[in-house]
Amino acid sequence: MVAALDEALAAWQLLLGPERVLQHADQLAPYAASTSAHPVWPLAVLRPLSHAEVVGVVRAAAEFSIPLYPLSTGRNWGYGDACPSGAGQVIVDLSGMRRILQLDTELAYAVLEPGVTQVQLANHLGAQQAPVWMDCTGAGPDTSLVGNILERGFGHTPYGNRMLHVAGMRLVLASGETLQTGFGHFSAARTTYLYPYGVGPWLDGLFTQSNFGIVTSLGLWLMPQSEMVSHLVASVEHFNGIAPVVDALRPLRMDGTLRSVVHIGNDLRVLSGGMVFPAAEVPQGPPLPDALRERLRSGAGIGAWTVSAALYGRPAQVADARRALRRAIGGLARLRFIDDRALDWGSAAARLLGSGRAGQRLAAQVDLGRSLLNMNRGVPDGRFLAGAYWRRRGGLPPAFPQGADPARDGCGMMWLAPVLPLRGAELLHVIGLVAPVFAAQRFDLFTTFSMINERTLGGVLTVCFDREDADETERAQACYSAAFERLLREGYIPYRVGPQSMAALDNGDDSYWRTVARIKAALDPQRIFAPGRYDGRYDGR
Amino acid sequence: MVAALDEALAAWQLLLGPERVLQHADQLAPYAASTSAHPVWPLAVLRPLSHAEVVGVVRAAAEFSIPLYPLSTGRNWGYGDACPSGAGQVIVDLSGMRRILQLDTELAYAVLEPGVTQVQLANHLGAQQAPVWMDCTGAGPDTSLVGNILERGFGHTPYGNRMLHVAGMRLVLASGETLQTGFGHFSAARTTYLYPYGVGPWLDGLFTQSNFGIVTSLGLWLMPQSEMVSHLVASVEHFNGIAPVVDALRPLRMDGTLRSVVHIGNDLRVLSGGMVFPAAEVPQGPPLPDALRERLRSGAGIGAWTVSAALYGRPAQVADARRALRRAIGGLARLRFIDDRALDWGSAAARLLGSGRAGQRLAAQVDLGRSLLNMNRGVPDGRFLAGAYWRRRGGLPPAFPQGADPARDGCGMMWLAPVLPLRGAELLHVIGLVAPVFAAQRFDLFTTFSMINERTLGGVLTVCFDREDADETERAQACYSAAFERLLREGYIPYRVGPQSMAALDNGDDSYWRTVARIKAALDPQRIFAPGRYDGRYDGR
Repeated sequence: MVAALDEALAAWQLLLGPERVLQHADQLAPYAASTSAHPVWPLAVLRPLSHAEVVGVVRAAAEFSIPLYPLSTGRNWGYGDACPSGAGQVIVDLSGMRRILQLDTELAYAVLEPGVTQVQLANHLGAQQAPVWMDCTGAGPDTSLVGNILERGFGHTPYGNRMLHVAGMRLVLASGETLQTGFGHFSAARTTYLYPYGVGPWLDGLFTQSNFGIVTSLGLWLMPQSEMVSHLVASVEHFNGIAPVVDALRPLRMDGTLRSVVHIGNDLRVLSGGMVFPAAEVPQGPPLPDALRERLRSGAGIGAWTVSAALYGRPAQVADARRALRRAIGGLARLRFIDDRALDWGSAAARLLGSGRAGQRLAAQVDLGRSLLNMNRGVPDGRFLAGAYWRRRGGLPPAFPQGADPARDGCGMMWLAPVLPLRGAELLHVIGLVAPVFAAQRFDLFTTFSMINERTLGGVLTVCFDREDADETERAQACYSAAFERLLREGYIPYRVGPQSMAALDNGDDSYWRTVARIKAALDPQRIFAPGRYDGRYDGR
Repeated sequence: MVAALDEALAAWQLLLGPERVLQHADQLAPYAASTSAHPVWPLAVLRPLSHAEVVGVVRAAAEFSIPLYPLSTGRNWGYGDACPSGAGQVIVDLSGMRRILQLDTELAYAVLEPGVTQVQLANHLGAQQAPVWMDCTGAGPDTSLVGNILERGFGHTPYGNRMLHVAGMRLVLASGETLQTGFGHFSAARTTYLYPYGVGPWLDGLFTQSNFGIVTSLGLWLMPQSEMVSHLVASVEHFNGIAPVVDALRPLRMDGTLRSVVHIGNDLRVLSGGMVFPAAEVPQGPPLPDALRERLRSGAGIGAWTVSAALYGRPAQVADARRALRRAIGGLARLRFIDDRALDWGSAAARLLGSGRAGQRLAAQVDLGRSLLNMNRGVPDGRFLAGAYWRRRGGLPPAFPQGADPARDGCGMMWLAPVLPLRGAELLHVIGLVAPVFAAQRFDLFTTFSMINERTLGGVLTVCFDREDADETERAQACYSAAFERLLREGYIPYRVGPQSMAALDNGDDSYWRTVARIKAALDPQRIFAPGRYDGRYDGR
């Protein structure tokens, strides 16, 4: 094995040059940094810059039987970060492949390499004055679009269900062959990036949340810019009050009035955007005492829940949607609509109020409003990463959000992501299931529920912990495991997991995972790619 | 082989009873009927009624190595009909599995077996007074929903891109194992039919246009009924005039003003809905002489092209969409909007006009309008099958559309289904490519171009021929092949093909088809399921 690794490294150095084959501990350490306190060190890190180099990397790996773990930019925070799926793997870091290979503003798509980040594409669209917007997530400007899509992440806009807005993948298979999905493998194809399915079996889904191939580019659809965007913020005073709001919004999500992903955050989720855990006031650590939590909530002017959504369209469409929303939830929540005009007014008013407390508070609200409207238009904002720092000693780094990287900054965070039927009672039921677990392990429960499609809520429940505190870290892992198991048993299956939970998805007698393993054995018989990543317990025989 | 078949038949008879194992030629003949004049006889036909029976059927097939060809209701007209993908196969006819296993009107989905037909589900929804509509196609009331979805067909409504509205497949694999996709393989899962992707590789696409498994049920999403539906019919006078209309509609399709599939038919497509080829007037056969074609067109009050689309929503939304459409194409086409109120007025006016020609013509128009509005609401109508009978001797059967079955009625028809970028110039280019081929073989060119998603047109070009005329049949096959090749070479790849073209999709050196073959070998090493169906030329080794 060691001899094989040395030979493989020599081959990779020949291919990439020694400076793109990282082996020193200080070069590898950033990749092992883990928000879940499960660091896994790679044997080495390779940094190919092109599809052809990836082919070469894979061929050498196959020749010497060294497992590879590909990553786009390695910012899969809370779900495994940049860590390989097991020990003994070599990372293929694709962040240097950051070309925007095509941009078509008429048919509204771009072809991206895995290293292209949210801010890079947003800036490119801006510089080209392209009349299109991308979808973006709150995970920060420097995260990879392709990486998030392959993990089946979701964003904030009408294109937030990202799997529905992808066509034409190019991959390297474990055999070293290049595969183009959709129509891309027909030499003259004109609709590779316009029509996902191609003819014959539609393979794209196979290469998401899997270890069957290394995607080196894909076509991402972009939204035409709309005349108007209006952001809804609805505040729900009491905890139980969210259930009727969810039920009243469901028909509007289903009939297309709400075409964007609707996010519902609890008070802690909103508060953690502007502060970290007040350790000075609460020296015994989490959870926040109820009285303090209430004081913080009322100080921020928020309720138990905040619903956030965006309306797009011509002014008449937006006005009609606003009326429909007021009819549906006007009696259940306090509604505010934010648009450019309202923000301009707010700015002016804040200037008039001056530097006093009221003026500062209004200015901060206007600033947040601009960030939200920007997100709706595909301009990412690092501020929404703040929640990851809740339990970090020292709080937010001074330059935050510049260069923010929760894994390398020492944040402790794990995400539970159950999928629920889109019903208010289900939301309350999920919280009822996990709240006792969080309470028993003494953690605050941060929750977001997002209408990721017309029929489900994607929950994101965060365990935030102090990674420098061994006891708290242990309790965090216990809390995560207990909540994970309870949710799974009750039928709230996660849409995505970190490496610590992949084996738990397979009960050992599941034809789904047997099928996955047989496909793995057919496409990658040596198990070169990311063994252990979303591949169950079965060995394919 | 014969001995094995006898043993397998004996096993199947034991399992299903002799009456559900069809072997007599007169029982098999309907399955061999072929609109493309490529009849393929099955060895036998099995009619299981449950998932468990399908498992039994597959196990016996595997034991005796007899290939199976599954079909839902066998109405894949123009794309292979009910014929197996090759000689020596036994058909598994699932049309007896016609249970609607679940209907949830709040979260708007149904779980269907493969035998459930369009009219059956539509009637069920009507009888339940369910506040939801299904998507339907023009392929007739008795066609299978599941079968069409697995062929990746498309319909007429906002749910017309059917692959996007499916979650939770249950299948029988060649091993006899049962596979549930999405979250369905987790015992307590609550969102099997609500969230397609599950966790881990998303497999659903693999089981469309393929031969990897037999789907025995799936979850189909239904549309919430909208307050108002308005059907747009836009008439474009001149042939070239369609290009600017396509370009002007594209932004409205892309921004969601047009959420439904937009269909664009040429004059012949519209005319063939109300007549067959006028053989008495044109004894030499097709093509229609120009002067006659023009006379027919002006008699029907149509232009060279007819654009058909539906608007859904609250009255204010529909009114806004109508305004946007008038602004976009009001100067390029003659627009009519059909809704319930307009049809009621039309009916009344037709009654006033009485039984004269004007009254009859108006009554017929109202009748067509009702059929179109019904389609928009998921009520299928057999009349849209009429085009298949264009060259049938004797024209439409007396009971048409009752019991219409183009394959068994002797219609000759083959479909070419290229996918185009959604641009007017591409539409004209495609016609420019195929028109000379059709002219050389003396066929009329029927065309529909449908905006099957926001970025492509799905073309359906029909070769209609007299199956009783050997020369015409031969020319039809030559016409089809030449047009198919030309389109493929120019990059207009078909979204779906009949069995005569499956091998032509693989140039023999294509890693896509090699990948498909490796998956086939992994999941069905004996090649029990539909060998030759969308599986390229490679044998999986």
